[in-house]
Amino acid sequence: MKGVLLTGFEPLDGGGNSSWEAIALVPGVRTALLPCRFGEMLERLRAAVAEHDPAVVVCVGQAGGRPDVTVERVAVNLDDACVPDSAGSQPIDEPVVRGGPAAYFATLPVKACVAAARAVGVPASVSQSAGTFLCNHLFYGLMHLIATERPGVRGGFVHLPYSPDQVLGEARPSMPVPVSAQALTAIVTTAVSVSLGGDLRLVGGSLH
Amino acid sequence: MKGVLLTGFEPLDGGGNSSWEAIALVPGVRTALLPCRFGEMLERLRAAVAEHDPAVVVCVGQAGGRPDVTVERVAVNLDDACVPDSAGSQPIDEPVVRGGPAAYFATLPVKACVAAARAVGVPASVSQSAGTFLCNHLFYGLMHLIATERPGVRGGFVHLPYSPDQVLGEARPSMPVPVSAQALTAIVTTAVSVSLGGDLRLVGGSLH
Amino acid sequence: MKGVLLTGFEPLDGGGNSSWEAIALVPGVRTALLPCRFGEMLERLRAAVAEHDPAVVVCVGQAGGRPDVTVERVAVNLDDACVPDSAGSQPIDEPVVRGGPAAYFATLPVKACVAAARAVGVPASVSQSAGTFLCNHLFYGLMHLIATERPGVRGGFVHLPYSPDQVLGEARPSMPVPVSAQALTAIVTTAVSVSLGGDLRLVGGSLH
Amino acid sequence: MKGVLLTGFEPLDGGGNSSWEAIALVPGVRTALLPCRFGEMLERLRAAVAEHDPAVVVCVGQAGGRPDVTVERVAVNLDDACVPDSAGSQPIDEPVVRGGPAAYFATLPVKACVAAARAVGVPASVSQSAGTFLCNHLFYGLMHLIATERPGVRGGFVHLPYSPDQVLGEARPSMPVPVSAQALTAIVTTAVSVSLGGDLRLVGGSLH
Repeated sequence: MKGVLLTGFEPLDGGGNSSWEAIALVPGVRTALLPCRFGEMLERLRAAVAEHDPAVVVCVGQAGGRPDVTVERVAVNLDDACVPDSAGSQPIDEPVVRGGPAAYFATLPVKACVAAARAVGVPASVSQSAGTFLCNHLFYGLMHLIATERPGVRGGFVHLPYSPDQVLGEARPSMPVPVSAQALTAIVTTAVSVSLGGDLRLVGGSLH
Repeated sequence: MKGVLLTGFEPLDGGGNSSWEAIALVPGVRTALLPCRFGEMLERLRAAVAEHDPAVVVCVGQAGGRPDVTVERVAVNLDDACVPDSAGSQPIDEPVVRGGPAAYFATLPVKACVAAARAVGVPASVSQSAGTFLCNHLFYGLMHLIATERPGVRGGFVHLPYSPDQVLGEARPSMPVPVSAQALTAIVTTAVSVSLGGDLRLVGGSLH
Repeated sequence: MKGVLLTGFEPLDGGGNSSWEAIALVPGVRTALLPCRFGEMLERLRAAVAEHDPAVVVCVGQAGGRPDVTVERVAVNLDDACVPDSAGSQPIDEPVVRGGPAAYFATLPVKACVAAARAVGVPASVSQSAGTFLCNHLFYGLMHLIATERPGVRGGFVHLPYSPDQVLGEARPSMPVPVSAQALTAIVTTAVSVSLGGDLRLVGGSLH
Repeated sequence: MKGVLLTGFEPLDGGGNSSWEAIALVPGVRTALLPCRFGEMLERLRAAVAEHDPAVVVCVGQAGGRPDVTVERVAVNLDDACVPDSAGSQPIDEPVVRGGPAAYFATLPVKACVAAARAVGVPASVSQSAGTFLCNHLFYGLMHLIATERPGVRGGFVHLPYSPDQVLGEARPSMPVPVSAQALTAIVTTAVSVSLGGDLRLVGGSLH
């Protein structure tokens, strides 16, 4: 049976990254650690997908400052970095894939995934933007890979809050890593079991 | 010479809408007032574009809670309303245009527009999401109209903060309407004068 | 040996209150549940102090929206309720204790308490205001009781974030109750062991 | 007739300070510019009060990040600086006045002042804490001076938001300086005309 591949990020600047710690706690899945480098992360993603041949791929990143687990809905064809990546690259207003469509929607059942996280007691919501930095780059790269080469694979992106030890003295929102992992476990279980096109019809948009 | 068309919104629920007040203060442009109703607003937009035959169309809305003027970058093909529109319609996870592309990028020079607003002293930034409600619906509808029928027109969307009188006792960010109008004036002047593809290469993305 | 008394609040409006759940998880302490009613809560506090004769009293409340555990520093002699208490009382600009001093400082070692919570991995900070509602009322009442009748007792107030199940779909900060309880345990351990006047000299103020 | 003295701050670190610019626009008042230095600012305040012999003194500062004009209610006897002042001094957990009371309440009619600012269209609210840095130091120093030497003088503290040019590209709340000045004008007019003890009974507390 085909399974689930979760990817996490290396720390960007020595500051830790909750995504890698969290996916390590999700049972029964394959995982891949990706570098915080434009371009190279997509090659590593492609290799991991080739190796594991998964039915579901969920890339996981960290959205420092957000208070809940967010399931991303839209990947846009845009790299616009406000800081450099770990190799010093800082693309501004360039496409992720030259000639690619302006955006892809996640093929995860995003509303059902959000509902599943809440059902296990973890605050979660849909996000309408994964930004224009590394997370969106990976998300778009994943969806483009699926669209062009792996049409049967279901893919998406989930953002986690800071872990508590990243913000001990900063009065910023955080979530313990095992709690984030619980949400991820519920999300991938849902992603595997809900049929394509079978998302829940739940309120979850944003006003602006 | 072809000119500029600015659109504003009627109040959604009797609470006022800074967009209509602000565009009325921008000199030398045509304006159109649009209803807060899915679908109908797009017919009214089409009629206004047909009537004025503009070179630039900037739709303007209100993003209550944002502290600065935001120039939107991406319109997504998604209606996901968390509250009903003024006609009671509340679409959930439906496309704006069935069969349309997942997203359109604004064809305004968004970075140059942001720089122009700041140059006249008004805080401004690029936004990566116009939400999934009325503003995104209008923005996507505009860009689809341009893509399919008005290829020479430059189009985009700008969100304004609350006006002060909307939040007198709420400790929420606001911007006086004449200040918002100053930003809009700078933005449309820039939109008219900067050549297509001639945007500034400035930092302005978001991390997530 | 005299011990520690922790107080928690009943839910104000059926919505739950993380303070009572959290103090139930702190080992080796006495606890008292207080009603969300001005005046009456102070009688119940006085009775609990009389019954347990503690060396340290920490009243615990919930500050919905704050992302971390906050150790309050100042109790002010002011009731100014923006909503009614559970008995329908809504005092505006009245003293907690007529003729009492304008404020009392906590006699907990607040900086050492914050450091202790962080040392067990829980984000925490000093707060300069407990508001003007029920929590401040209780805090001031406690410090006045200590100042006038129980000079040897050490007292203070700690605010907890929402628990996750209070904000599942709201994109607001939360903290699992067992994590809050860990912080409380560290705080009371510190309060018992640090000598009066022996607080740590750590940065922890606020700009405004 | 005795009049009104408004004080403003010098910029702390070359970044500008909206308080000095704003008080310069208030008609019919005396003004004094104070340095961002613990201790020295209080000597300068004392000299200005001696020189102008005012009936009302309102010290004005900047609370970067707040979206509205805030009228402070409580000055606490505590210096706890998280950054150094402009002379490099950084007191931690020291009293403003050794032996002084824990706190003073403003003798401005704070609710009436807030209502007056709103009545001229400027968002405003009561604040329960002026922090533990320079603004609280000045506020406490003023109230102590009044309590011990100038019992007939009415005093308080008002915090202004950033001016727009301080946050052009930061997506943080701001208020144009002339708008802040309008609020100050309404506030001092109210402070002069409302009799002592004659504040309005309006909702304006905070939950926590």
